[in-house]
Amino acid sequence: MDLLWVLILVLLSLSRYNMAMADSNSVSHSGNALNLESVRDSLIRQEDTIVFSLIERARYPVNSRLYNQTLGLVPGFSRSLVHFIVKETEAIQAKAGRYENPEENPFFPNGLPPSVVPTHKYPQALSRRIHYGKYVAEVKFREAPQDYEPLIRAKDRDALMNLLTFKNVEEMVKKRVAKKATVFGQEVTLGNNSSGNYKIDPLIVSHLYAEWVMPLTKLVEVEYLLRRLD
Amino acid sequence: MDLLWVLILVLLSLSRYNMAMADSNSVSHSGNALNLESVRDSLIRQEDTIVFSLIERARYPVNSRLYNQTLGLVPGFSRSLVHFIVKETEAIQAKAGRYENPEENPFFPNGLPPSVVPTHKYPQALSRRIHYGKYVAEVKFREAPQDYEPLIRAKDRDALMNLLTFKNVEEMVKKRVAKKATVFGQEVTLGNNSSGNYKIDPLIVSHLYAEWVMPLTKLVEVEYLLRRLD
Repeated sequence: MDLLWVLILVLLSLSRYNMAMADSNSVSHSGNALNLESVRDSLIRQEDTIVFSLIERARYPVNSRLYNQTLGLVPGFSRSLVHFIVKETEAIQAKAGRYENPEENPFFPNGLPPSVVPTHKYPQALSRRIHYGKYVAEVKFREAPQDYEPLIRAKDRDALMNLLTFKNVEEMVKKRVAKKATVFGQEVTLGNNSSGNYKIDPLIVSHLYAEWVMPLTKLVEVEYLLRRLD
Repeated sequence: MDLLWVLILVLLSLSRYNMAMADSNSVSHSGNALNLESVRDSLIRQEDTIVFSLIERARYPVNSRLYNQTLGLVPGFSRSLVHFIVKETEAIQAKAGRYENPEENPFFPNGLPPSVVPTHKYPQALSRRIHYGKYVAEVKFREAPQDYEPLIRAKDRDALMNLLTFKNVEEMVKKRVAKKATVFGQEVTLGNNSSGNYKIDPLIVSHLYAEWVMPLTKLVEVEYLLRRLD
């Protein structure tokens, strides 16, 4: 697999994590019930989205020119073509008001045009601070502030990372996404006999979670927590 | 279901049908083997994409303001917000060269900016005409030109539509997409017991194919055939 597209995918998947609010299981729709279970339900549902996206992406070959900054494919633009497409698409979505929602985070926030559509009032039963924050980190902090506060004050990133790491949960996530890749990636026919062909290697999905999605998610959580007491 | 978003979805799904070329089962990658089987394999794979998209869309509530032309949400733009987003997104993709590919069709072709990236040479083992055309219609025509030619010359749309309609195939497609909605829409857990919850009603997917995707696909095929002898 091409590392760069994996990175883009992971970034997109993290973005989808942040869109949990719009999910029917979402935290903000459930009122004040900001607890780890509702956040987890939402993240588990996001796994389906990520596995669907990986299966869809696996249909196409790698196109490394798309990610190459040195080719100068877009005149007057010094970055890669994929950078151009994502940045310009975000500019349109900014005009359409996407980033007025405090849970929507652009990859390239610099120089985005303002929204041109009427402002939507987002329900904020919870504080604006939490909307800007990262749910999982916030929930974990609230459950055990006495464990987190000294580490935050000491700016001890490694200890925070350890505190955020639950090996058994991570093993379960790895197994579940592999199973999802197997179920969603099977060839469905009207007969009873499965072809045994799969659209994506479940192990690759599992590794992607273990090596990229979960570590990057925790990195974001650590960064959030370091600012939690400011 | 909100009719307008169904229509958008169907339009998107038809667009995905047209992207069959980029598929690993694609017609153009298989060289000269333009036959109904290879086209069907590709369309069957596209069903997965459509079912994935429907499952993803079903997570969110209807937002009818998005499709309302009379609200004037975008200053200086007389159409709906979704029209604005799709049109502007297509403009960026046009700049990035998407529509240089003869199989990529924008929804709003008027006033698109030219591509700014270097021209890519598309492999055209088959004639450019076929690339512009609609595979299924072209394949059916080639298999029985003696049946189609008189109807095309008579511009008999109804008879062409009948000739293109295979009731048993359509019934099979309806059953298969319903099964796909069941398989891909299930809640996957690590235990053996399924929750019995599904993310989308398989009957809705089946109806969507029967009432929208297949009739609109055939409409496009008829229009293609009417120009086939020009």
